Amino acid sequence: MPGNSFGQFFRVTTWGESHGPALGAVIDGCPPRLPLTEQVIQEALDKRRPGKGGAAETTRKEPDRVEILSGVFEGLTTGTPISLMIRNRDARSRSYDHIKDIFRPGHGDYTYLKRFGIRDYRGGGRSSGRETAARVAAGAVAQLVLDLAGIRVHAYTISLGGVHAEVRDLERVNENRLFCPDTKAAERMEERVVEAKKAGDSLGGIVEIRAEGVPAGLGDPVFDKLDAEIAGAIMSIGAVKGVEIGSGFRAAESTGSKNNDPIRPEGFLSNNAGGILAGISNGEPLVARAAVKPIPSIRIEQDTIDTAGQPVKLSVKGRHDVSAIPRIVPVMKAMMQLVLADALLRRFSMEITDNCKLIKDRDNGRLV
Amino acid sequence: MPGNSFGQFFRVTTWGESHGPALGAVIDGCPPRLPLTEQVIQEALDKRRPGKGGAAETTRKEPDRVEILSGVFEGLTTGTPISLMIRNRDARSRSYDHIKDIFRPGHGDYTYLKRFGIRDYRGGGRSSGRETAARVAAGAVAQLVLDLAGIRVHAYTISLGGVHAEVRDLERVNENRLFCPDTKAAERMEERVVEAKKAGDSLGGIVEIRAEGVPAGLGDPVFDKLDAEIAGAIMSIGAVKGVEIGSGFRAAESTGSKNNDPIRPEGFLSNNAGGILAGISNGEPLVARAAVKPIPSIRIEQDTIDTAGQPVKLSVKGRHDVSAIPRIVPVMKAMMQLVLADALLRRFSMEITDNCKLIKDRDNGRLV
Amino acid sequence: MPGNSFGQFFRVTTWGESHGPALGAVIDGCPPRLPLTEQVIQEALDKRRPGKGGAAETTRKEPDRVEILSGVFEGLTTGTPISLMIRNRDARSRSYDHIKDIFRPGHGDYTYLKRFGIRDYRGGGRSSGRETAARVAAGAVAQLVLDLAGIRVHAYTISLGGVHAEVRDLERVNENRLFCPDTKAAERMEERVVEAKKAGDSLGGIVEIRAEGVPAGLGDPVFDKLDAEIAGAIMSIGAVKGVEIGSGFRAAESTGSKNNDPIRPEGFLSNNAGGILAGISNGEPLVARAAVKPIPSIRIEQDTIDTAGQPVKLSVKGRHDVSAIPRIVPVMKAMMQLVLADALLRRFSMEITDNCKLIKDRDNGRLV
Amino acid sequence: MPGNSFGQFFRVTTWGESHGPALGAVIDGCPPRLPLTEQVIQEALDKRRPGKGGAAETTRKEPDRVEILSGVFEGLTTGTPISLMIRNRDARSRSYDHIKDIFRPGHGDYTYLKRFGIRDYRGGGRSSGRETAARVAAGAVAQLVLDLAGIRVHAYTISLGGVHAEVRDLERVNENRLFCPDTKAAERMEERVVEAKKAGDSLGGIVEIRAEGVPAGLGDPVFDKLDAEIAGAIMSIGAVKGVEIGSGFRAAESTGSKNNDPIRPEGFLSNNAGGILAGISNGEPLVARAAVKPIPSIRIEQDTIDTAGQPVKLSVKGRHDVSAIPRIVPVMKAMMQLVLADALLRRFSMEITDNCKLIKDRDNGRLV
Repeated sequence: MPGNSFGQFFRVTTWGESHGPALGAVIDGCPPRLPLTEQVIQEALDKRRPGKGGAAETTRKEPDRVEILSGVFEGLTTGTPISLMIRNRDARSRSYDHIKDIFRPGHGDYTYLKRFGIRDYRGGGRSSGRETAARVAAGAVAQLVLDLAGIRVHAYTISLGGVHAEVRDLERVNENRLFCPDTKAAERMEERVVEAKKAGDSLGGIVEIRAEGVPAGLGDPVFDKLDAEIAGAIMSIGAVKGVEIGSGFRAAESTGSKNNDPIRPEGFLSNNAGGILAGISNGEPLVARAAVKPIPSIRIEQDTIDTAGQPVKLSVKGRHDVSAIPRIVPVMKAMMQLVLADALLRRFSMEITDNCKLIKDRDNGRLV
Repeated sequence: MPGNSFGQFFRVTTWGESHGPALGAVIDGCPPRLPLTEQVIQEALDKRRPGKGGAAETTRKEPDRVEILSGVFEGLTTGTPISLMIRNRDARSRSYDHIKDIFRPGHGDYTYLKRFGIRDYRGGGRSSGRETAARVAAGAVAQLVLDLAGIRVHAYTISLGGVHAEVRDLERVNENRLFCPDTKAAERMEERVVEAKKAGDSLGGIVEIRAEGVPAGLGDPVFDKLDAEIAGAIMSIGAVKGVEIGSGFRAAESTGSKNNDPIRPEGFLSNNAGGILAGISNGEPLVARAAVKPIPSIRIEQDTIDTAGQPVKLSVKGRHDVSAIPRIVPVMKAMMQLVLADALLRRFSMEITDNCKLIKDRDNGRLV
Repeated sequence: MPGNSFGQFFRVTTWGESHGPALGAVIDGCPPRLPLTEQVIQEALDKRRPGKGGAAETTRKEPDRVEILSGVFEGLTTGTPISLMIRNRDARSRSYDHIKDIFRPGHGDYTYLKRFGIRDYRGGGRSSGRETAARVAAGAVAQLVLDLAGIRVHAYTISLGGVHAEVRDLERVNENRLFCPDTKAAERMEERVVEAKKAGDSLGGIVEIRAEGVPAGLGDPVFDKLDAEIAGAIMSIGAVKGVEIGSGFRAAESTGSKNNDPIRPEGFLSNNAGGILAGISNGEPLVARAAVKPIPSIRIEQDTIDTAGQPVKLSVKGRHDVSAIPRIVPVMKAMMQLVLADALLRRFSMEITDNCKLIKDRDNGRLV
Repeated sequence: MPGNSFGQFFRVTTWGESHGPALGAVIDGCPPRLPLTEQVIQEALDKRRPGKGGAAETTRKEPDRVEILSGVFEGLTTGTPISLMIRNRDARSRSYDHIKDIFRPGHGDYTYLKRFGIRDYRGGGRSSGRETAARVAAGAVAQLVLDLAGIRVHAYTISLGGVHAEVRDLERVNENRLFCPDTKAAERMEERVVEAKKAGDSLGGIVEIRAEGVPAGLGDPVFDKLDAEIAGAIMSIGAVKGVEIGSGFRAAESTGSKNNDPIRPEGFLSNNAGGILAGISNGEPLVARAAVKPIPSIRIEQDTIDTAGQPVKLSVKGRHDVSAIPRIVPVMKAMMQLVLADALLRRFSMEITDNCKLIKDRDNGRLV
């Protein structure tokens, strides 16, 4: 309940501040006998490494090295909690002294103080983007579960600074630093980033998440609809201000005759549903999109107040990304992986008739 | 975990199918000593009564009478589970026989069967819109908690069939049958509804939810962000395909200098944040919007298949609403009420220092 | 969290006061396609009917009629919440007026007021034994899940008023009104009950619960050990003051060489473990015992205070059972059924490799 | 749900195997602004250090050094997850090779394999007693919450190898290595330990847990009774086979007139209730007792089988404790601390009326 866990069957608890000794995740509920190495997790983490994102990002070095502390024995998961830790190595607390007593507009400084009666001014405490490293690490473990079902998750940038991707060539996503499936659009996005940087401003964008190979029948029909889980998961990522599934906000302008997906014996003829009907997957690809707000830390001077309530002008100096987009893309993927691993395990718990047979057959009355 | 409960401190479990004997909700975690009568709940339920929504709705009579079965003694809540029941009186199962073996496009028929291996063809089972009556009833109880903090929740239609409200005159919301805060737009919306009905088609729209009087400091900074809870809650309502907070998808096209809300000693100068920063309320009004898809049941003929996989042409006859909008508005309000009641109780559990003093002072060492 | 739900996968929420309009349970997480009728539940309820327990019980008529309000369609569970309701018919509130302002010794009157700041003096509110009718009803549904695995649960009285059963003839349990597996001991127990009644006093006892056919591998090794779940479940029944598993408190006096259960190829040679090792079932019968305190309402005069803190002498008049034993036996059985149904579903959710195959085979790539 | 978390408001998740790189706990839900240092936790851990327990224990050096990885800033808790880690330094895996393929009687080897389909033979995996180090560390943090309410928890040995403590001099508990409140009994217990060691056997015992200063009104009246939480918590400690509250199993032999605690204006005249009535604390000291079975690893030869089902004779050589008692005492204390911290936070979440006033007064309408 206290807010730092996600999932009910495949349950991830993250911990750690951006400037504390370390951050990490504990995964409880991962099935046993899945192959897991630090390398698999490290590869996912490397995708969100700054310095890779080109003009949109700062050049701060932040070599996140994951360590598996428990839950794996002889290369296989054991079914017990998997504890992952990443040491913070670049925790220069001093660099936050100048904003120690100032509420940065668009940041959680003020609300965090109201919530906890305490402010961890060193990089935002738990509100820091660094917390998402733990999510990405956990997502890589969730993928082991998804592998069994043949599910693949993609996340990519379809809009940045007003430039929209026209095509969805998923092969291209990892070829550019903005994770954009449209190479030409990616170039124009980079131009927008350079302009914004020069202006001391920042940019928003849209990320699309697509999961393929999802079997029909995941999700529940009421509060725990699969799309409700996805919406909550994606909105739990800092900077996200909107989520839509399938035709999304366009559905609001549409009619039933256009928005319904006709069904033919060979399958659905379209996917306005985004792979989900009545909260349950229908076997089509899951498609979600998230609106990402511009990073609030900008060089352009803004009005704000200090902790004493006095007016202050703030111009955020130093290294800051122009857009959250490149870093946020792997986090979107991770959250979708976590939602789907949880939904898969949840469904299986109900397959009681078949499972009872399965266990009886396996045991066959013998002690061993 | 099994999917029919919402909230962690103020916890609602709904039950019941559209064509079973009854439906209801059990509310566990409602604080004691709050005044509660059936009348208060009934008034909320009456707002979603069909026949009230004008051209957009069917004229089926559906007099939902709520009965409080537990948790109230001498007019006050007791702190124990509040059980609410609404008998189904209009459960004409026969009228579903013609679609018994057909997967209606845009409906959950197919996915429900895949999930449960069983199909309750009588009106969609738990996927039915009738389930939301239980949510509305529970929302009215949640409001008792919100009353203590001075929180008021509004929900209203800002778009229907492509017609957008230009003004937000909340005084007008209950004056028209579409819950639209713009009387002129409401008239044009009604025209669009009449046209769609004539064409045998249906319409989507957008509902805005606004909560005023929300104290700063509600919500948690990681997975249980207040906006994540809202997004999950709203997306758990059938027909919703998108949710946004504050500037929402417009933030994706904006820049930091425009999207940040400057702060002055007297308060925030704008509310692009929609009242939430880093997952925690900032004292400004909460503003969320939900995209509602057109109702999938239409008279216009559509391609589909039957349960044997054979192609079928389907034209849905009989009484069907043109848009989910009028009925869904009170449900949106209810879900926001549930989220906020839960967030309030959650925050108080952490006010340990003050609470220990409070309990000590009250007891003062004496037995009674 | 708020305290009226039990189980995580097979989740039961009970509601209702002894003197309100009704009481009931909502079961969320029951797998679909299990045969369920009101008759099955009614039979379990009838076992705890007063008037059946002989001298130990009052003769108050209390015809508990259960009604299934949801979750069953055409005789099968649907996988959605099963709502059960029992109307209270004998709610004579007036009979509690004389104790309205008195804290009865051994009862929850005082603590309930401290907890909720309100007192439902009509029969103890949620602390009433009547709440357990909802547990028994839910237990009967849980048995449907256990049936699939071939699990049978027995509960029986092995001690009452100092008389101990010498034999465990489970065939005899339903032949006497105290659910005692030793017919001769049952007779002496009845004598003790008659004596205690005459003296205006009450008696404690011990109930044993035995589950047969439990497959090895249920339970988790840390906090959610199967024995921890059982202990919590049994102790959650009012009047229970102690729980033990297998050799229980005798193990405290024993040595490893005597208390260990040697293993032979054909099985365990003894069952001091009570069927559980390291929190996980070992395939042997589960054996637990619960100490039940004497009913606190007695005719013998006792010292107490009223709600103003003034000393009062209390002699509880009217109909009162001499021992909780006969009524509590079916409740013990029900709680064990609930624990085991939950543990079964929990285990299956981890059988991911086999389940993925199972679902793939079943679907075989086809839409229907 | 997956079984490695405890508590709902003050929530602890433990992770780590006895022979993996480390073990630890994540505490989510600890209120902010409480003073926390590694020293406080270290002192609690040192109490369970082997080598301290005299004859009853092995002499293996096991210097558990706790590291706080998150959740504390400038010496105060921040309200965010507190991650605690203890590196394993003495993980000599080789010493387990000889039992790699043998099911040790009384251990979880067999059930663990049945549960997970995998066996972590290195010291029992999660079933190892080392897991409890994480509980003790978490308990020390829970005590910070209890300090606010003035609650103190004691745990001590009242029976070992058949020797029973006659007095309860809590001042003496830390003066002997068995945590026994009766110095003379402690000496005889040590003698029993020496005899058992010589015989290659092991001993069981009973631990009593006593919490003072617990305010009336903690706990809930149905499933989450305070005694049910305590019973589940205590039974979740390996080797515990029984739990009782107050008069416990003696209540089963008693009568109402003897077992009821009479009430006088100055308080309860006795404490057979063990501080809990109807699941809710009554302001008296909480008293619980746990039966601890003899350690199953003994030198005396026992019958068992190997993983191929073949009969084997097993004599466990090497360093092994004679009784779990000395090590388990601090764990009992920790579990009670965790239960009470959770119950305190849970209760406060319902004090809504007072809390709303409190927050309004504090904020007073101003932004900061």
